[in-house]
Formats: sequence, structure tokens, C-alpha cells
Amino acid sequence: MKILVTGGAGFIGSHVCDRLVKDGHAVVCVDDLSLGREENVQQLRGSGKFLFVKADVTDAKAMRKIFETNSFDACFHLAANSDIMVNDLNIDYRKTFLTTHVLLDFLKSYRVKQLIFTSTSAIYGEKAGALREDDGPLRPISFYGAFKLASEAIIAAHVHQHGLQAWVFRFPNVVGRRLTHGVIYDFMRKLTLRPSELEVLGDGKQEKPYLHVSELVDAMLFAWKKANGDSNVFNLGADSSTTVKSIAAMVVQEMGLKPKVRYTGGDRGWKGDVPKFAYDLSRIHALGWKAKMGSNDAVRLAIKEQLGKA
Amino acid sequence: MKILVTGGAGFIGSHVCDRLVKDGHAVVCVDDLSLGREENVQQLRGSGKFLFVKADVTDAKAMRKIFETNSFDACFHLAANSDIMVNDLNIDYRKTFLTTHVLLDFLKSYRVKQLIFTSTSAIYGEKAGALREDDGPLRPISFYGAFKLASEAIIAAHVHQHGLQAWVFRFPNVVGRRLTHGVIYDFMRKLTLRPSELEVLGDGKQEKPYLHVSELVDAMLFAWKKANGDSNVFNLGADSSTTVKSIAAMVVQEMGLKPKVRYTGGDRGWKGDVPKFAYDLSRIHALGWKAKMGSNDAVRLAIKEQLGKA
Repeated sequence: MKILVTGGAGFIGSHVCDRLVKDGHAVVCVDDLSLGREENVQQLRGSGKFLFVKADVTDAKAMRKIFETNSFDACFHLAANSDIMVNDLNIDYRKTFLTTHVLLDFLKSYRVKQLIFTSTSAIYGEKAGALREDDGPLRPISFYGAFKLASEAIIAAHVHQHGLQAWVFRFPNVVGRRLTHGVIYDFMRKLTLRPSELEVLGDGKQEKPYLHVSELVDAMLFAWKKANGDSNVFNLGADSSTTVKSIAAMVVQEMGLKPKVRYTGGDRGWKGDVPKFAYDLSRIHALGWKAKMGSNDAVRLAIKEQLGKA
Repeated sequence: MKILVTGGAGFIGSHVCDRLVKDGHAVVCVDDLSLGREENVQQLRGSGKFLFVKADVTDAKAMRKIFETNSFDACFHLAANSDIMVNDLNIDYRKTFLTTHVLLDFLKSYRVKQLIFTSTSAIYGEKAGALREDDGPLRPISFYGAFKLASEAIIAAHVHQHGLQAWVFRFPNVVGRRLTHGVIYDFMRKLTLRPSELEVLGDGKQEKPYLHVSELVDAMLFAWKKANGDSNVFNLGADSSTTVKSIAAMVVQEMGLKPKVRYTGGDRGWKGDVPKFAYDLSRIHALGWKAKMGSNDAVRLAIKEQLGKA
């Protein structure tokens, strides 16, 4: 198949491109390189199956050119302001929502019938218990979560209006090679600059499920193949979770340091952060996919990869 | 209080202005007059409590001027593409969503702490059973519903981020004086042009709760005063509902006509229409408000008003 991947040079997007090319698909990767990096997809250049285009998805002229010169069977839409701590109204609007709105219009016009969309746990807001895909109410507390929910809303309408088929994956915290942000990246950056001290945002008790990017991409491709409804919505994750305090301990241990660890306090890292959540994963499990790595193992592996030890 | 009403010259917006002025508030009404009409608020001109500004809510320059010259305590946001049969991706995006996004940025910048937002049953999509405010999943099938849900999503984030207090009212079908569209308006227009025939979209079995605009505004003002959470979400409606077939019969009867009624067939009026829904109203009832008129009575009264008989 011929597949468009938006945000394809980013952390997760580049792994999606790797896998799609490996599976024999022809991939056009669009990325504005605001968060993505061209070297993330450098390895695909010689494959004969891969084209990189530097463009902003909201740039209608650039996008029209891409759609005019390619006939896509499917689109993986990962372009977004994935650096959720930015939490800026207008950046999140433009990068996370407007990209989706503009893209959907192109998919409609050029009759691309399959959309794989990367959503997030943040759409649920701050909600107790194991989150199920059919849960309500949905009251995101971050702009990232709000614009991802807004994107899900317009995707649902397109499914009904234009016979689009959609796979919506609600990601947990994802880790692995090519991280560009997040708690592991942040700790390692701080410790590299100043090995004697580690500042941890919040009280360290924030606890979330972490999934390794290799397993995440595996789950996406699996569900894309196996689930065949009009609108296929899945939480993705491992059954277990990891505290920020444990991540700090693992990073410190793997780096071989003994810093003074200082907590900034409060129950969350920043305004808009959901300090704890857990997924009900019965839907993806019932489809036949289950994470092999636990949350702690995924974090440990990602730290080792980042240090070149794995 | 000093209150901004967007879409204030529209069908429902003008009734909101009427009531706010009657209750002693100072009102600034903003409307681009694309669906609204200046004569809807003509009666308020001499009150000394009312200012009409012709402007598009997405026109940042015009809006800045309004916010610079007024210090608002609250905002009723009704500007939207309320003509839901239009169902045009880009019109709905601009009029229903972008108005909300731009407005929220102004409310944040000018520290306006209360937002009263008019949402819709369409955010629930096509869902069986009595709809509850906390229900999921939310999969709107029209662009109108999608962009209203998208609006609710970003309102939720603003509530958490900037201490905005929000009242979100999910409207049923609303009828009464100054209707600009909808089934009653449509039937009367058709019969005026051609009294011998009435074309009904769908099979006539579409069945929804209708609420008279006077009761709707009453419920909004009641809940705005009584409910004091950060995020107050309410379905509004009457317990009963009315079929499109009955509405046709009532219109024909009140107009004293005997047309041949022809159904276009199919279970819905247009792609994106939700043919049947019912609300669970226990939340607004528990707060102390209940509709006095049944759905049929509301429809009958609206027809009579439209004909100048009430």
C-alpha cells in the first residue's frame, strides 16, 4: 500500500515509518521538523520505498502537491505538538488540531479511505479507575488533551459523512529510541548538565503506564489489520505502571550517578498534567494483542537505549 | 453584571439578550448577522442597557476593541452555524469552533471568569437510550456536533488552566419566535410557497424533544444562578418528544390547509441528522428546574407564534 505518515520524522512517527517500510509499504513522510529530525528517517532513504517531504500539514499548497502526486491508500496522522508541557493554547491549536482538520479535508477530497490517528489518555482528563474507551464524561485538563479530543470529534463526523474508516489509538506514555521529551529525556538531560543534583517535578508519586515504542507500533499495525469497524478506538498500554520516583532511581542507577534528588512538590509535574491514570485494556486484549514488556521493563530498556547500552 | 452575548441577534441569542436586559444586566451583543437579524434586538435599543456590535467573533481586531472598552463579568457564547443542515466542514469549523477558540483566548486575556456555552444533543452522536451528561463514547455524526464537542473539549481545558467557570447547556430542538430554520420554519416556508403539497424529509418518524425558547432561556438563567461547580454541564429539554409527522400535521392544521403530504423516505432528514434521541434530565431536575410545557405543546405554541396567532 501507499501510505502517508504525518509527523513521520518524530519520535513515534519515525518508528511507524520504519515498520511500514519493513512491511513492504511505500511511505511518504511529511514533517515540518519542528519536533521531528531528519536523521530519524535517514536509514530509510535508500530503501526505494520512502520519500521525505519537509512541510507543515496545515500548509495547503504543500499538501495539495503531495496529494496530487501520490495516490494514498491510508494515512497515519502523528503530526502534533507532542511536547505536552508546552501547553500553549495557540501552538496546541495549530499543531494538534488544525493539522487534523486540514488533513481530513484532503483525505476527503482525494478519497483516502483509511485514517490511523494517534490520540492520548489526556482526552479522559482527571478520572479515577481504569479508563475504558467508551467512558464519559471527557473533560481534558490540558490543551494537548483538548485538541486531541477535538480531533477525535471531527474524525467521528468524517467517518459518518464520507465513509472514512478510522483507527484511533489512545497512547499511554511512550518511551524508546529517539525520545525528544518526557520524563526520561528530561532527567538524563538534567543529569548530563549537572550530575550532582536531580530536580523532579512534583512529589514523584505520579504513576502512569509506560509502553515501549516497539510494542506500541506493533499494537497499531496489529489492530489496523485485525479491527474492521468504521471507527476502531483502542487504549494501548501495558497492564502495569511506573512512578516518576522509580524512573528517577532507574535513570540514576543506569547512569552510575549518586545525585541529590530534590522534589519540587505538589501532586503533579505541571498544570495540565494528569498525575495518575490506568487503562482498561480489555478491548485490545480481546482483539489478540497484549504487551510483552511490563511498564518498568519498558522504562529500563528505554534508558539503556538512550545511553547506548541496549 | 456586564455581559457579552455572542450570536446575540440570532434566534436563541436574542431571547437571551431580552431576558438579561429584563433582569437588569448590561448587555453587549455581538453578531455578524450571517444568521442573526438586527430587528431581533431592535426592542432593546432604547433600554440604555444594550449595545449591538456587528462583528464576527473570529475578527480579532473587532473583538479586541470590544474587550478593551468593556469589562465583562460573564459571556454567553451562542455564535455558531446553527443551521445544522448546512453540514459544511469549513463553515462549521469557522463559525462553530473557531469562534469558541478565539473567544476563549479573549476571556483568558481579559480575565472574564464566567462562560455560558450552548452545546447540543448532536455531540452524543447516534446513541440509544436516554442520554446522560456523563455518557460516553461521544461520536458525533454531523460536523455541527463534532465542532460543538470540540468546543466543549477546549472549554474543559480552559476551566482547569485559567480558573474559568463554565456552564455548558446541551440543547434539544428549540422552537419559538424568531426561528430562522428547522422543521417548523421549513414546513411553513414550503406551504406558503405551495399550499397544495408538503414534502417531508425522511419517513416522518424522526422523534425528538422540543423545548420552547422561553423555557430554554429560563433553564439557562436558573442553572447559571444555582449551579456553582467549575464545570456545570446540563442536558435541557422536556420529558416528552414529538415526531416530524406530528409536526407536519400541526402545521397543516394551524395553517388551515389540506396539502398532499409526501415523504422523501429513509430514516433521517439528511446525512448527519440523528433521527431519534431522548435525554435523561435528572441532573437539571435535581437542581430544581423542570419544563412546564410538553414537547407537543411547545411545537404547537411555536407554530401559532409564527402565524401571529399567539
